Amino acid sequence: MTAVQSTQIQLVSRPTGWPTHENFRTVTVELPELEPGQVRVVNEFVSVDPYMRGRMNDVKSYVPPFALNETMTGGAVGRVVESTSDEHPVGSLVSHQLGWRDVAQADAAQFRVMEALDGVPSSAYLGILGMTALTAYVGLQDIAHLRDGDVVFVSGAAGAVGSAVGQIARILGASRVIGSAGSAEKVELLTSKYGFDAAFDYKQGSVREQLAEAAPDGIDVYFDNVGGDHLEAALAEFRDGGRAALCGAISQYNTEGPTPGPNNMANIVTRGLSLVGFTVGNYLDRFPSFAQEMGTWLREGRVQFDETVVDGIENTVDAFLGMLRGENTGKMVVRVGTGS
Amino acid sequence: MTAVQSTQIQLVSRPTGWPTHENFRTVTVELPELEPGQVRVVNEFVSVDPYMRGRMNDVKSYVPPFALNETMTGGAVGRVVESTSDEHPVGSLVSHQLGWRDVAQADAAQFRVMEALDGVPSSAYLGILGMTALTAYVGLQDIAHLRDGDVVFVSGAAGAVGSAVGQIARILGASRVIGSAGSAEKVELLTSKYGFDAAFDYKQGSVREQLAEAAPDGIDVYFDNVGGDHLEAALAEFRDGGRAALCGAISQYNTEGPTPGPNNMANIVTRGLSLVGFTVGNYLDRFPSFAQEMGTWLREGRVQFDETVVDGIENTVDAFLGMLRGENTGKMVVRVGTGS
Repeated sequence: MTAVQSTQIQLVSRPTGWPTHENFRTVTVELPELEPGQVRVVNEFVSVDPYMRGRMNDVKSYVPPFALNETMTGGAVGRVVESTSDEHPVGSLVSHQLGWRDVAQADAAQFRVMEALDGVPSSAYLGILGMTALTAYVGLQDIAHLRDGDVVFVSGAAGAVGSAVGQIARILGASRVIGSAGSAEKVELLTSKYGFDAAFDYKQGSVREQLAEAAPDGIDVYFDNVGGDHLEAALAEFRDGGRAALCGAISQYNTEGPTPGPNNMANIVTRGLSLVGFTVGNYLDRFPSFAQEMGTWLREGRVQFDETVVDGIENTVDAFLGMLRGENTGKMVVRVGTGS
Repeated sequence: MTAVQSTQIQLVSRPTGWPTHENFRTVTVELPELEPGQVRVVNEFVSVDPYMRGRMNDVKSYVPPFALNETMTGGAVGRVVESTSDEHPVGSLVSHQLGWRDVAQADAAQFRVMEALDGVPSSAYLGILGMTALTAYVGLQDIAHLRDGDVVFVSGAAGAVGSAVGQIARILGASRVIGSAGSAEKVELLTSKYGFDAAFDYKQGSVREQLAEAAPDGIDVYFDNVGGDHLEAALAEFRDGGRAALCGAISQYNTEGPTPGPNNMANIVTRGLSLVGFTVGNYLDRFPSFAQEMGTWLREGRVQFDETVVDGIENTVDAFLGMLRGENTGKMVVRVGTGS
């Protein structure tokens, strides 16, 4: 039997500002034979996500930073090709967190067997059926305590998380859903495909003015993927008792040095607002109820999703950088080998 | 019978930056005879509070701004001198919100009869037994969800709210209570009288560095009376899951134009923090349980309090300005006439 090789992408230095190819290296390693209880998986798709930029910094966080000179971890889906675990038969579709590699091999407990849904590509388990949409689900319900009739604003709304937020908010009773995105095409998609009531291009004017126009009666919930002037605009437009779920601040991930916060923090007191940050990894106990509800919504055609697919594990860094620049619509994934 | 006069202080223009005497005027009005169901009260003490500065601005808020050319409203305590209400007999001690005047007259429903506690001055119903300490009680429990063993940081800790926060936090199970104040005397008071474990003078160095030193293992709860660099320091020192109750931002009430927010808002996401603003007026349903618990704590000698008393209704504006400058220790009140 020929040795099996795995191509993997490692972080070798911590980016200052925008990451570059110099921060990564590609290595090819020979995998040892499986040990008892281990599984070998050929990946179909690996995930590139905004939060990964944050974990490249060496800062105190819920989740420790990525280790240098080790393979980038993160979401991936693939097929079991060799197994010593009864619960992971060859051919099973599995998801895991072993990240940027074409072949993954580890203890069986690292792999979760997924029930493939008809007509849904395996990449969906990284997006609309995975951590991405779980983030939207948890942020709206557990963090922002979405209530019937709420006006909801989502930034980065054409992204994987944002587009799920808008649609889930509507299903769960929001009276009006407003989104911001970074191009005319994305803005069009928000209203035509994802059912947003209003959308605007944050590059074409003041976020604050455009939000005020889109939400003449104010907002109740803000789902923040962007930070910066978007958060400031939301603080300006909140009604009394407004709630912000802070998921990420992609506008600031690559700035060097501290960035001033919103200039209207006083509204938090006078309007009784709440700003709550979260990391989906602390809410994995919500996955089962999420997976059941989202499966139903997908089958009923109530949720739409997009993917931007980049081919080849060797292009993972480019996919990651493109996602940070907003070149994706919906979930950005890397197709590995024969992923389908 | 001679007509009864009431001396009252009115807001006549909205301050820009620091208020001045020009923003107010003193008027003396003759009170009409009582109508059925009305009560006349000679005040003993009237309250000057930080939140009043915010309400002098014409901004959207839970609570509408103070009306121009009307008497300033706010907490006050006095004795009923004339009454057509069976529930408010002459001689009763009452608290009310009719504000900066020496004699108050209105429908009986505006006055709450207080049960006088032995050895407690009536001014206490504006502070440790009133809205002030209710603010501390609600902020710690309903807003910051104080838990057993939490490390708590309070800014403006020698103020009326802050000194109550520190002591209530300790009673409710905080493992360590840290306060900041604006003079060496106040810092000394925090540790010697109010039982704080550590305290520092924010005028004597970086808040961030002094907090880091006082809380080497980080903080879980921050009660914010100050805003600005204090909030930034708290965001820097929060442990995962930290909770801030935002009560006011006295450092910013008198600045002109918008002030940049904390430069480390990203920590809200990475550490799963929550920042929640509140106005005590929305939590008046908590008054009965507060009054009962605080009454017990006072009788047991577990809570200490200070007052800074300014004499004479005509000096109310000076008392208010002095409080904004931090000249008070504990609750700042104005003694009216024979208040005792």
